[in-house]
Amino acid sequence: MAKIKALKCKECGATYPVEPIHVCEYCFGPLEIDYDYEYIKSIISKEKIEKGPKSLWRYIDLLPVENPTVGLSAGFTPLIKAENLGKELGIKNLYIKDDSVNHPTLSFKDRVVSVALSKAKEFGFDTAACASTGNLANSVAAHAASAGMKCFVFIPSNLETNKIIGSLVFNPTVVAVDGNYDDVNRLSSEIANEFGWAFVNINVRPFYAEGSKTLAFEVAEQLGWKIPDAVVAPLASGSLYTKIWKGFNEFINLGLVEGKPPRMYGAQASGCSPIYKAFKEGRDFIKPEKPDTIAKSIAIGNPADGPYAVKTAKESNGDIEIATNEEIIEGIKLLARTEGIFTETAGGTTIAVLKKFAEKGVFKEDEVVVAYITGNGYKTMEVLEGKLNKPIHIKPSLIEFKEKVIKGG
Amino acid sequence: MAKIKALKCKECGATYPVEPIHVCEYCFGPLEIDYDYEYIKSIISKEKIEKGPKSLWRYIDLLPVENPTVGLSAGFTPLIKAENLGKELGIKNLYIKDDSVNHPTLSFKDRVVSVALSKAKEFGFDTAACASTGNLANSVAAHAASAGMKCFVFIPSNLETNKIIGSLVFNPTVVAVDGNYDDVNRLSSEIANEFGWAFVNINVRPFYAEGSKTLAFEVAEQLGWKIPDAVVAPLASGSLYTKIWKGFNEFINLGLVEGKPPRMYGAQASGCSPIYKAFKEGRDFIKPEKPDTIAKSIAIGNPADGPYAVKTAKESNGDIEIATNEEIIEGIKLLARTEGIFTETAGGTTIAVLKKFAEKGVFKEDEVVVAYITGNGYKTMEVLEGKLNKPIHIKPSLIEFKEKVIKGG
Ligand SMILES: Cc1ncc(COP(=O)(O)O)c(C=O)c1O
Ligand SMILES: Cc1ncc(COP(=O)(O)O)c(C=O)c1O
Ligand SMILES: [Zn+2]
Ligand SMILES: [Zn+2]
Repeated sequence: MAKIKALKCKECGATYPVEPIHVCEYCFGPLEIDYDYEYIKSIISKEKIEKGPKSLWRYIDLLPVENPTVGLSAGFTPLIKAENLGKELGIKNLYIKDDSVNHPTLSFKDRVVSVALSKAKEFGFDTAACASTGNLANSVAAHAASAGMKCFVFIPSNLETNKIIGSLVFNPTVVAVDGNYDDVNRLSSEIANEFGWAFVNINVRPFYAEGSKTLAFEVAEQLGWKIPDAVVAPLASGSLYTKIWKGFNEFINLGLVEGKPPRMYGAQASGCSPIYKAFKEGRDFIKPEKPDTIAKSIAIGNPADGPYAVKTAKESNGDIEIATNEEIIEGIKLLARTEGIFTETAGGTTIAVLKKFAEKGVFKEDEVVVAYITGNGYKTMEVLEGKLNKPIHIKPSLIEFKEKVIKGG
Repeated sequence: MAKIKALKCKECGATYPVEPIHVCEYCFGPLEIDYDYEYIKSIISKEKIEKGPKSLWRYIDLLPVENPTVGLSAGFTPLIKAENLGKELGIKNLYIKDDSVNHPTLSFKDRVVSVALSKAKEFGFDTAACASTGNLANSVAAHAASAGMKCFVFIPSNLETNKIIGSLVFNPTVVAVDGNYDDVNRLSSEIANEFGWAFVNINVRPFYAEGSKTLAFEVAEQLGWKIPDAVVAPLASGSLYTKIWKGFNEFINLGLVEGKPPRMYGAQASGCSPIYKAFKEGRDFIKPEKPDTIAKSIAIGNPADGPYAVKTAKESNGDIEIATNEEIIEGIKLLARTEGIFTETAGGTTIAVLKKFAEKGVFKEDEVVVAYITGNGYKTMEVLEGKLNKPIHIKPSLIEFKEKVIKGG
């Protein structure tokens, strides 16, 4: 592939051929795609992108895939000008990037999985797998089904019901592991070593992770080829957050947009905030913790890209904040009530943290701010139990309607 | 509005000014938009549409709205080439039009509501309302929230939990009526007469209904400005089905595409099939019935557009079939397993009926067939209870994985 030179260790710079490997043999650092940006600059342009498919594949020149065959409709989700929410928070130019309607499984994971499994097909794998907090499992199961691949997804056994059914319906083998995500991930790494499967977020991770860059590319294009001043995104393993940052920088370095990359504001749940703590305590290493939060999709106590997320927060002049369970639920309700968008707990965390930063006054008068809503509320229904108004029950009678609803309400 | 001449009675042809009214004073027939197609022909073109927004508003020249303010991101959902499902059913050129990821509330209702409430805003209404089997309520509640309108939604009290929460989260007044949809609808008509609200599917219905035409427009454009040979769509009130037909005919009559309009195949649940029965029995009137089906979103026993749906089936050389509860669930699972798309009971009905027609051999060798998937599976989770494989539970141990999953599976 002319656009890719090699895989390269993020720590020591050692290079490797483009293969389904993810760890440096010398220093155990993570491997990343080493693009030939000179070459890419010679073939990419705004006009070419605009003529491309209405999916994330319009950015194929910056993705590690030759021949997309899986997830052809993923991405290119709406960017919403959030007037009402912006008014409540005092942010004039607030936008929601709404991956809660991503195709087909309603989270940003459809991006990373499209890239990972298209690449897995190029490598010749016949089995897809993942370690997941729920959304990734949904997406891997759906895409494996449409790609005709066998599929194993590994999840913590205490996940939300809808996230489990949202995998089972695609008929993969769902392995529910007695433990938290970090246990699931450890076991999955052992399995990845023995079985010749495409574990999208383990041995295929260098390719998988690149899919999240499209969340930066799309926002820049949808803003009219402009870079926002600040963005807010949730942190689990830290991959999404660091790749959004990378995406904006790539667009700038290639001359597709002008200006500075955005300040990166990160959101974690207070019940699982190892990246927040490392950042606040000025550490460049993560102290693993045991998650205890309703935001299960971002409950990763030992985040693989944690140190890089800390670095991104610093480099971008950003910051990281946390939200309690109550604040997360209020965040879900706030976004629904003001913008008509129904997100899951990860999105509730993002909105809660957006609110905190707005209250702290970090966004200046005319700044453009983008909040990344990465998943759909239908998958975490249970957290709303007892938190919403109830329906008013009536007989089919106009009189009862007037008495119970109009007078009563 | 130059593009619209008047409202016109579908039965007697009487004309009315463009106002929030829906019934003919003379014959009680339904009113419809009377477009000035000569004028529209002079302003519309493929090139203009292609340059438009990536939403249903690219077809604004054929919608009864001047100034879209609500639902700016609705529509332009993926059209998926369904290779795997096509192979199973013996249909070479099968496509899924996937409104299960429509923005923001995951059903085709985001189309009709965008049009209805944009129009309601033009009329000056401050309150949105609807009678709904669930999806419409979700969409009206979401769009009213983002539009800053007050909101009342009326639903049968026995709806699926997720469909109820999927309205409540947007903070409307949800009125759960003790009865079926037809009771809800009757009560809502009485309320519409007394309160000055925009009932999207009652007094604003002539405008609302036009939104469904975009399901035809998008398919034609996404097929490369071609008309499919046959389509399959679900029937509740019959509005969607008749408007898809109207949309294809408009595109042909305006010279935007060549060829004949498609054969229209309709899908109902066997537990609520008044349109199917009228069609099969050669009646042009509907005998209302009491619904009893898991496909609650399409459980309308006294469908407002039933007679027009029967007429469309005949005129288009189409047909109507029904699916049992078991077949509906099998339809949901079949689509998920083959195409990685998770639909609700209405979509299950559509796939089940698609399968029946395929088995009957109504689709010829090279014909292009489109199945309309109109809603998302997360909203009707309960029907899958006991119908899917279960997760395999293990401790986080490689040995247990091998014993319980690899050997056991
Ligand atoms: C909805 C949602 N948002 C955000 C994330 C964070 O992803 P990452 O692990 O890339 O930080 C996840 C991870 O599973 C998620 O499911
Ligand atoms: C998912 C879904 N599909 C199809 C329909 C049918 O709509 P119509 O009443 O226009 O026939 C409905 C109606 O509520 C629906 O919710
Ligand atoms: Zn190294
Ligand atoms: Zn009349």
